[in-house]
Amino acid sequence: MFTHETTLRVRYGETDRMGYVYYGTYPLYYEVGRVEALRSLGFPYKAIEDGGVMLPVHDMQVKYHRPARYDDLLTVRTTITALPTVRIAFRYEVLDVNGMLLNEATTTLVFVDKATGRPRPALKELVEALAPYFP
Amino acid sequence: MFTHETTLRVRYGETDRMGYVYYGTYPLYYEVGRVEALRSLGFPYKAIEDGGVMLPVHDMQVKYHRPARYDDLLTVRTTITALPTVRIAFRYEVLDVNGMLLNEATTTLVFVDKATGRPRPALKELVEALAPYFP
Amino acid sequence: MFTHETTLRVRYGETDRMGYVYYGTYPLYYEVGRVEALRSLGFPYKAIEDGGVMLPVHDMQVKYHRPARYDDLLTVRTTITALPTVRIAFRYEVLDVNGMLLNEATTTLVFVDKATGRPRPALKELVEALAPYFP
Amino acid sequence: MFTHETTLRVRYGETDRMGYVYYGTYPLYYEVGRVEALRSLGFPYKAIEDGGVMLPVHDMQVKYHRPARYDDLLTVRTTITALPTVRIAFRYEVLDVNGMLLNEATTTLVFVDKATGRPRPALKELVEALAPYFP
Repeated sequence: MFTHETTLRVRYGETDRMGYVYYGTYPLYYEVGRVEALRSLGFPYKAIEDGGVMLPVHDMQVKYHRPARYDDLLTVRTTITALPTVRIAFRYEVLDVNGMLLNEATTTLVFVDKATGRPRPALKELVEALAPYFP
Repeated sequence: MFTHETTLRVRYGETDRMGYVYYGTYPLYYEVGRVEALRSLGFPYKAIEDGGVMLPVHDMQVKYHRPARYDDLLTVRTTITALPTVRIAFRYEVLDVNGMLLNEATTTLVFVDKATGRPRPALKELVEALAPYFP
Repeated sequence: MFTHETTLRVRYGETDRMGYVYYGTYPLYYEVGRVEALRSLGFPYKAIEDGGVMLPVHDMQVKYHRPARYDDLLTVRTTITALPTVRIAFRYEVLDVNGMLLNEATTTLVFVDKATGRPRPALKELVEALAPYFP
Repeated sequence: MFTHETTLRVRYGETDRMGYVYYGTYPLYYEVGRVEALRSLGFPYKAIEDGGVMLPVHDMQVKYHRPARYDDLLTVRTTITALPTVRIAFRYEVLDVNGMLLNEATTTLVFVDKATGRPRPALKELVEALAPYFP
């Protein structure tokens, strides 16, 4: 497995009148998590897309355990749970400064050829970069 | 089962550079779906909350089948799939103008007493209003 | 002058922990206002863009008078204040159900040729459709 | 004058189908700018609010010069242009990695007593912390 952590701070506009981070804000945080995980492997998502490959999200599952609040400094721990094939699966854990798990999620993204709109295998270089983590 | 449909139009700011509705926008649409479903039953969510009961989201599962695009007029079909207990489950289907299913989701929300922060049973009046749909 | 009104309802995710609509949400509402104003004139913004013309926002000025709140049914009154040239100016007033002015704004958008990225004159047909309102 | 710089990276969900950062995203970035400027002075906005003082935005003026794009690493340069009275004025410049000015804005916020909902003078300690910058 490959795991990467990144931090972000809750913005005022991301909260709702309950005083919590709106439940629909977390997909943005998960996006930050997987993009930084891919960047740390040498694959900025922008470069992937500029290279003609898109990664639309196929499905998402979220469990909300505890609310995050305004100005919280959150850690998004992102795990790539298997070698990508035509899909790539990410697991996310959002933690507060005390390491308390606030919510967790999984998403599956599909490698799609921008030109044809068709699914295609994962980038070979990305699979190679991940291989050492899946011995 | 109780089913309710509402329509909404995709805003420019809800799309992303792929030209699609951002995957993190749909939770906002699901919120519109369940709020309008509850309103049609005589329970505006605002009134529920002003009455001292909150409904935080406990979990969410989404399947993205086809993208929605800018200016699309979407139907959110919301279904309450069981009589609420301490939780209430919603199912959502987002359809385009041709009735094509774009994505579907489920969420579970928990009835929480605002004063104590503790879970509590569903509003009795809401359960009564829903009872005829679950004979 | 040409004026058009459209209504929208405040979503939970558009509020912030102050209990008000987040100040950064209103540009989305102004977008809805001008898009529906253009649609009512026979020019859906999507068709304009699909025809090769973009309308990026050049500047915006907002005055926030009173907060809008969750579930409020708002009216966005949009006014085109002058015949468009290479630019088009919109004025917005956001009103609550009692007609109370909550905030007001102006934006200027520029007609840009998508192919060249250069400013270009307003669509001739749009100018013609607006001409009767500026006698 | 007091000036502070903070950086942030453009998220995918903050872009629109033009491929640019949506014009309504920048108020979120300006919020980050002023919050980090206040934090650097020893006044986390959360502490101000928890202390019973709110700072709703009174007005905003934006000039959009050049678009920001997905994954851009932006600098928000925030300037407090005068000693706060019952209001506090911020100026923002959003720059790309080459120091090119993408957009600039000003906002005025009002100090409001949370208990009474009435305007009140700026926090004395904040005025004192800023005084050396306005000799």
